[in-house]
Amino acid sequence: MAADPIARLIGELSRLPGVGEKSATRLAYHILRQPKQYARNIATALNDVCEQVRLCSVCQNLTAQDPCFYCSDARRDDAVVCVVENVQALRAIDRTNEFRGRFHVLHGAISPLDGIGPDDLHIKELISRLHTQQVRELICALNPTLDGDATTLYLQKLVHPLGIKVTRLAHGVAVGSDLEYTDQATLSRALVGRREL
Amino acid sequence: MAADPIARLIGELSRLPGVGEKSATRLAYHILRQPKQYARNIATALNDVCEQVRLCSVCQNLTAQDPCFYCSDARRDDAVVCVVENVQALRAIDRTNEFRGRFHVLHGAISPLDGIGPDDLHIKELISRLHTQQVRELICALNPTLDGDATTLYLQKLVHPLGIKVTRLAHGVAVGSDLEYTDQATLSRALVGRREL
Repeated sequence: MAADPIARLIGELSRLPGVGEKSATRLAYHILRQPKQYARNIATALNDVCEQVRLCSVCQNLTAQDPCFYCSDARRDDAVVCVVENVQALRAIDRTNEFRGRFHVLHGAISPLDGIGPDDLHIKELISRLHTQQVRELICALNPTLDGDATTLYLQKLVHPLGIKVTRLAHGVAVGSDLEYTDQATLSRALVGRREL
Repeated sequence: MAADPIARLIGELSRLPGVGEKSATRLAYHILRQPKQYARNIATALNDVCEQVRLCSVCQNLTAQDPCFYCSDARRDDAVVCVVENVQALRAIDRTNEFRGRFHVLHGAISPLDGIGPDDLHIKELISRLHTQQVRELICALNPTLDGDATTLYLQKLVHPLGIKVTRLAHGVAVGSDLEYTDQATLSRALVGRREL
């Protein structure tokens, strides 16, 4: 097994999420059919992220430059910090073009069932930021799940004494969705959070 | 785009078959969450296949050693050669444990629509093998498709003058299948090729 490079490539690819041995085999032979540069490019990209990508020393975003793109953008508002669980959420919020403040990436959420406590997340770095940086509002943009809500509550308790406003994303029906197919919990929250026109 | 290693990794991964930009993003962030060794192992496996894997000089199988595993196995019968379209087919036939002869990989099938002619396949190498090696039977194990059948016919015409028996795989109903759901073409062939008990 270890001696045959094709078998080893299949083995490595099958460890990717959602890739079983059959898909890995298909991918491996696809790669083998391409010019060698194709595989080399993927290998280089993989090695490059290993060597160049690290956490931003300010917001813990994954980045090749430190401070990251968002932290070094002078046009962003230092007074508003948006806390997210991961980099994918950061990108999603950035894509809305509605938010021009700073980010902070926790790299997870508090999850007692998975044994993830506050010390496993980048909360310490957030608190020290809030002490040094003049922050007016902390937006908790965690996932609307049990773990995300627990983390929001935890942050709220922690940040409240600092005199910083803590907000969370609005819950409600998704734009373009059908009320018939909206789950009960979401619809309840949308009702409770109804807005006057 | 080119400057950011994460974006570049996503770009490279999204060029894999069946991997869109969303899957590539998911894969990239999964890779970034793992220890660096995880990405390095995949990169090494990719570079290793580039450096070590080439075509077997005898049968055109993809291999790290030349001649390949099948061609260097002294217990295999030189007198029977099984022609396959690709390495995946070779492996599938090998897995049956029913075949103890040699292989020959064409790396494709004749396909006029795709502009693939006999000269684009490793047929020349097959013919020169048949001239130097004492071959009794050539099994055409090409895919039961238009292209595969055309290639089988072409090989049969080419090899017939050499006095070598040319056979092809039996067509018929799949073991464990349901006749109700067997396609008409397969069922017709199974009827025509019926065997006396």
